[in-house]
Amino acid sequence: MSHTVGELLPPTRIMMTPGPSNVDPRVYRAMATPLVGHMDPWFTEMMGDVPVLLREIFQTKNKITYPISASGSGGIEAAVVNTLEPGDECIVCVNGWFSERMAVIAERTQAKVIRVEAPYGRTVDPEDVRRAGKGRKIKFVGLAHGETSSGVIQKLANYRQVADELGALMIVDAVATLAGVPLDVDHDRIDICFSGSQKALSAPPGMAPITINSRVEEIVRTRKTPVGSWYFDFTPIMSMWGGERTYHHTPPISLIYGMREALRLVAEEGLPARWARHAQNQQALIAGLEAMGIEMWVATPAERLATVTAVTIPAGIEDTKVRKQLLDEFGIEIAGGFGPGKGKAWRVGLMGYSSQNKNVLLFLAALEKVLGDQGHRVPAGAGVAAAIQSYQGAGQSSSQPVTAGAHK
Amino acid sequence: MSHTVGELLPPTRIMMTPGPSNVDPRVYRAMATPLVGHMDPWFTEMMGDVPVLLREIFQTKNKITYPISASGSGGIEAAVVNTLEPGDECIVCVNGWFSERMAVIAERTQAKVIRVEAPYGRTVDPEDVRRAGKGRKIKFVGLAHGETSSGVIQKLANYRQVADELGALMIVDAVATLAGVPLDVDHDRIDICFSGSQKALSAPPGMAPITINSRVEEIVRTRKTPVGSWYFDFTPIMSMWGGERTYHHTPPISLIYGMREALRLVAEEGLPARWARHAQNQQALIAGLEAMGIEMWVATPAERLATVTAVTIPAGIEDTKVRKQLLDEFGIEIAGGFGPGKGKAWRVGLMGYSSQNKNVLLFLAALEKVLGDQGHRVPAGAGVAAAIQSYQGAGQSSSQPVTAGAHK
Repeated sequence: MSHTVGELLPPTRIMMTPGPSNVDPRVYRAMATPLVGHMDPWFTEMMGDVPVLLREIFQTKNKITYPISASGSGGIEAAVVNTLEPGDECIVCVNGWFSERMAVIAERTQAKVIRVEAPYGRTVDPEDVRRAGKGRKIKFVGLAHGETSSGVIQKLANYRQVADELGALMIVDAVATLAGVPLDVDHDRIDICFSGSQKALSAPPGMAPITINSRVEEIVRTRKTPVGSWYFDFTPIMSMWGGERTYHHTPPISLIYGMREALRLVAEEGLPARWARHAQNQQALIAGLEAMGIEMWVATPAERLATVTAVTIPAGIEDTKVRKQLLDEFGIEIAGGFGPGKGKAWRVGLMGYSSQNKNVLLFLAALEKVLGDQGHRVPAGAGVAAAIQSYQGAGQSSSQPVTAGAHK
Repeated sequence: MSHTVGELLPPTRIMMTPGPSNVDPRVYRAMATPLVGHMDPWFTEMMGDVPVLLREIFQTKNKITYPISASGSGGIEAAVVNTLEPGDECIVCVNGWFSERMAVIAERTQAKVIRVEAPYGRTVDPEDVRRAGKGRKIKFVGLAHGETSSGVIQKLANYRQVADELGALMIVDAVATLAGVPLDVDHDRIDICFSGSQKALSAPPGMAPITINSRVEEIVRTRKTPVGSWYFDFTPIMSMWGGERTYHHTPPISLIYGMREALRLVAEEGLPARWARHAQNQQALIAGLEAMGIEMWVATPAERLATVTAVTIPAGIEDTKVRKQLLDEFGIEIAGGFGPGKGKAWRVGLMGYSSQNKNVLLFLAALEKVLGDQGHRVPAGAGVAAAIQSYQGAGQSSSQPVTAGAHK
C-alpha cells in the first residue's frame, strides 16, 4: 500500500483569520488525552461539565445547552430545521455570507423564507424587518450577531423588539461573537443561540455550542411533523446532553476534551476581562492600520465586530500577493473578503488565543514590510507606533489570554 | 465564574467495546499538532492525503472519497438523504440497531421505506429482499455489512445480485468492518459505502469516511429536488474534497490530522495482515470463551463479525454487575446488548488498536475472576489456556498492530 504519505509536519502559523484561531497549549494537551468510551461512567459524568461552563459563557440558565457534534454551520442547520415546519414563514436578516447561509438552509425545508437584506459591511434595519413581517405569522427572526464575512456586529435588542411584536422566536448566530464580545442570552432573550468552537472560544473546529430556551423545547416537543434531519434533531440530543445520557450518536470525545479545556480557560479569565482584551487589541489594530492609511470596511465604528476587522485593500495592491507574502515570510494568515468584498477586503481576526498584543504589533510591522516590498509606501513605523499609543492610552497591555498557572 | 470544573483526569481504559477503540499513541500525537487554517495552502494540499489513503482502504478508485465531518450516523444520513427524493422507494435490510437506524433516517425523507427484517443475531435473507422489491422501482437496497449491535456480518454479493435485479443502488454501512474485515468496494460494486473513524480504523470518533461511485455522483447531479440537508449535501462537499477545495464548512482539522495518521498506520500494516490479526484475535477470544462455557450469540460461525463478538450472558449472571467490576477492577470496558440483547448479551469489541493478544488474554483472565466473584464458577484457567492454544495453532501471536518504527 501507499507509503507516499509521509509524516505530518505542518508549518507554524499565527492565525489572524476569522477562525480557526490559535489554540492554548493546554487545549492541545487535552486533545491528546487517551480516549474513554462515551458510555463510560467517568465520561457521562465529565461531559456534564461542558453544559455547566457553556451556560456561564452564554450567560443563560437554559437546561438544553450543549456542543453539537458538527461545525458551526451544523449549528445553523440544527436551529433552523428544528423550528420550521412545512408552511411556516420565517425572516432572515441577510448582511453577509453566513446570514445568507441561514436563509439558504431554511429554504431547504418546506418553509417560506423572507430575506431582509443589507449590504456587506452594514447592519440590517430593524424597521425593514418590521415591515417585512407585518400581518404575517413569522416563526422566527434569524440574524448573525457578528457577521464573520464582513466584520459587522448588530445590536440584538432592536431585533428582539421586532420579533416580540411579530410573536416570533429570535435565532442568533453567535459564531463570531461568543466569548469575544458581550453577549447575554437570557438578558437579550435569545431563543436559540449557537456558536462555533474555533473562534473566540479557541477550541479546535468541529463542534457548535448551542443553547435553546424552554419556549423552543416546547415548540420542538409539539411539532406536527418530524424534524427532517435525524442527526440534528434536538429531541434525542436533549436526552443525551440533558441528563439521561441516552445513546444517540458517538460524540467526538477528543473534541469534547478540547472544548472543556477551552471553556475552563474562558472561565478562568472571566468574561469582562476577555471582552476587554478583544476590544483593546482591536482598537490598537485599527489605530495602527489607520495610521498606515488603511481604511476600515465598516464605516460606522459602533458597528465594527471586535473579533474580525475588515479593511479595504489599498488601491493598486493585489490581495493574494500580500496574503501570500505574509504567510510565506512571517507565517501570518489573514483572510480575504467574501462576496462583494472578494479581492477588495482583508479580514483580520483577533479571536480567543489569537487576540494578543504581540500578534497586533507583529502584524502591523509585517504588513508595513510587505506593502513596501510591493511598492506601496506607508509612513515608516507609524502603524506600530499608533498601536503602542493605543495600548498606553488604554492603560494596560492587553497581552496574553489567561493560561495555565495564572490562577494558582 | 465557575472554578468547580477541575483538571481533565480520565481513567486509563482498555476499550473492548464496539467502538471507540483504543488509539495508537502516534494518532494522539497527531491530534495534538498545532492547527493550521483550513484555507492554508499547506492544509488544502495535506487534506488530499486522506482520500488517497481512504481509497486504498476502501479498495476503490472512486474520486469522491472523503471523511464526513460527523459521527458514523452522519454517514448514514448523508448516504440516504442524497439519494432519496420525494416519492422514491427504498429497501433497508434490518437485522439490528444500526440497520434499523438507516430505515429511521430514510423515513425522515418523503420516500417510502420497505423494511426487510431478520432477528438480532441473524442475516437478512436475500430472497426476502427479492420478494419485497419485486415489481417495484427501488432506489437503493441498504444494509449493514457488519451489525455492531448484534455481531453479525452479511455477504455483500448476495444483496448486490438482488439490487442488480431491481436496478437499485447498494448502500453499505461498513462502520464496524472497514479495515477490520475484508471489504472491497469496487469488487463488491458498492455504490455508497461509509464507515466511522473510531472502530477498526482506530481514530478518535467524529468523522465518517464515505465513498460514492460515479453512478451516485450522476444521481446527485440530476436530482429534481434539493437535498433536504445543507450540511450533508454531497454536491458542495464534492468540490471541497474533490479537488477544488471550495469552502463549504470548516472541517475538524485536528480530527483530520488524527484520521490521516490512523490511515497511515493501516497502510503500513497492510490490509491482509490487519484482517488476519482481527480474525485470529477473535478466534482466540471465542476459543477462550467457549472453554469457559460461554455461548456465542450468533449461532452460525460464518456469520460472526470479527470485530464484535456477541455472547450470551450465562444464566443467573447480572449484566451490569459484571461490566462494572471489569471496569472498576481491571479498567476493561465491554458493552451490553441492544434491543432484544439488552441484559442478555455482552458485546466484546476487538477493533483496530484494541485487537491485541494481550487484551484477549487479560480479558479472559479478568472475566474468570469476575464471574467467580459473582458465584459463577468456570473451569479454572480453561479460557486462557484455550486462547493460547488457538494462537499456537494459528502459528503466530497476532500481537500488536504495526506501530511507529516498525517500517524503518
